[in-house]
Amino acid sequence: MKNIKLVVSYDGSSFNGWQSQGNTKNTIQEVFEVTLNKVLGETVEIIGSGRTDTGVHALGQVLNFKMYNNDDMDIELLKEVLNKQLPNSICIREISAENERFHSRYNVKRKIYKYRILTSKNSDPFKRKYTYHFTAKLDVKKMKEASEFLLGEHDFSAFTTAKKTKKSNVRTIYKIEINQGNEEIELKFTGSGFLYNMVRILTGTLIEVGIGKINANDIVSILESKDRTNAGVTVPPQGLYLVEAIY
Amino acid sequence: MKNIKLVVSYDGSSFNGWQSQGNTKNTIQEVFEVTLNKVLGETVEIIGSGRTDTGVHALGQVLNFKMYNNDDMDIELLKEVLNKQLPNSICIREISAENERFHSRYNVKRKIYKYRILTSKNSDPFKRKYTYHFTAKLDVKKMKEASEFLLGEHDFSAFTTAKKTKKSNVRTIYKIEINQGNEEIELKFTGSGFLYNMVRILTGTLIEVGIGKINANDIVSILESKDRTNAGVTVPPQGLYLVEAIY
Repeated sequence: MKNIKLVVSYDGSSFNGWQSQGNTKNTIQEVFEVTLNKVLGETVEIIGSGRTDTGVHALGQVLNFKMYNNDDMDIELLKEVLNKQLPNSICIREISAENERFHSRYNVKRKIYKYRILTSKNSDPFKRKYTYHFTAKLDVKKMKEASEFLLGEHDFSAFTTAKKTKKSNVRTIYKIEINQGNEEIELKFTGSGFLYNMVRILTGTLIEVGIGKINANDIVSILESKDRTNAGVTVPPQGLYLVEAIY
Repeated sequence: MKNIKLVVSYDGSSFNGWQSQGNTKNTIQEVFEVTLNKVLGETVEIIGSGRTDTGVHALGQVLNFKMYNNDDMDIELLKEVLNKQLPNSICIREISAENERFHSRYNVKRKIYKYRILTSKNSDPFKRKYTYHFTAKLDVKKMKEASEFLLGEHDFSAFTTAKKTKKSNVRTIYKIEINQGNEEIELKFTGSGFLYNMVRILTGTLIEVGIGKINANDIVSILESKDRTNAGVTVPPQGLYLVEAIY
């Protein structure tokens, strides 16, 4: 048996998200399962570091699977063969054989996401699937101020659309970087993990701070309220990228 | 009557080329005709500076049309309305009212095209529709040397796949710039005009010089032969961009 870890990037606009649920076809997980089955001649179970929604991209998603009948296969060759078989909207960047106990979801220590906002007056046909076009003036200084209040360990219930369960909504955000480029603003979040829609709601809330709809220090009471209705909107998926999963 | 000039960019991967021919649906020309008809309530004829093939992009395609029933319409407002109605794979960058004799195809003085080659070892899911992935080592110095022989006025019959007609295949190339970036090589051609597939064959030929299959000074005899079979391959459309049409 070999426990294979892959670091992959994909263009989320080509897929119905990461995970097959019910009748959902053309998911990234499904494409990997079908391709691996074809190449290896055995059915493998794909475990991702987490799901990405329809339209959300990955620069460094991590997945692992155990293969039992192909122990002797050179893994660099396997990477090459898989990259040839996979649609070119997916690319395997790295491959490695890990300890048999390695689990890409349970073992992840930190995750990094980024969100790209296109701020130019005109929209850009080449960026429509890769950024969120938002033209109102954003006060980046205020957004940075507000982001400070999000750092550290908090119950982020106000920043998720997941149904309430008994599971903890406590997560730690280690770092939020906000960079203003020529015609883009990029927000980069490093955390212990993120709840469902959390990065998109954090970004939507910081945007509402940027336009003056929410005050920077209101973040404290929004967090404390644990009430989704107090936070900002959920921004659209196409600006979001899973940058890295760290183990 | 107003003769309206538009400068537009579009993502060619979303369309079946510029021009409707026979049963070809979803062309850029057709999208403009339908949208203008809807917005203006009159049927207008769209004239482009030239066609672009399926998959070829435009940063600055120029088109014009004459409108007869909407003389009093503010053109900046028209631009805004059109940009809202057009699919977001197309964007109008500039609008102006020109002299009634302005014709976007007949009056063009120079055209600029660029071709993007992705040279990284791994392919990039985000660039698959916007570059040509070519991994063999390219000798850029030799490519630049060869490009010198293409400058000036020549009969470019060896560099087109158009059917032979009585029309002249003489064109002038004013400038060829070849820039090597971190993981891309970009070729930029400025000319009086380009024959069908000419930029893609010029690029394919320079690539064959770059891998040593054609010698730089063979360009002279290839031009003189006027024989398509002597030039390099026609590289794929997705790396090609119409950058500008100059009047």
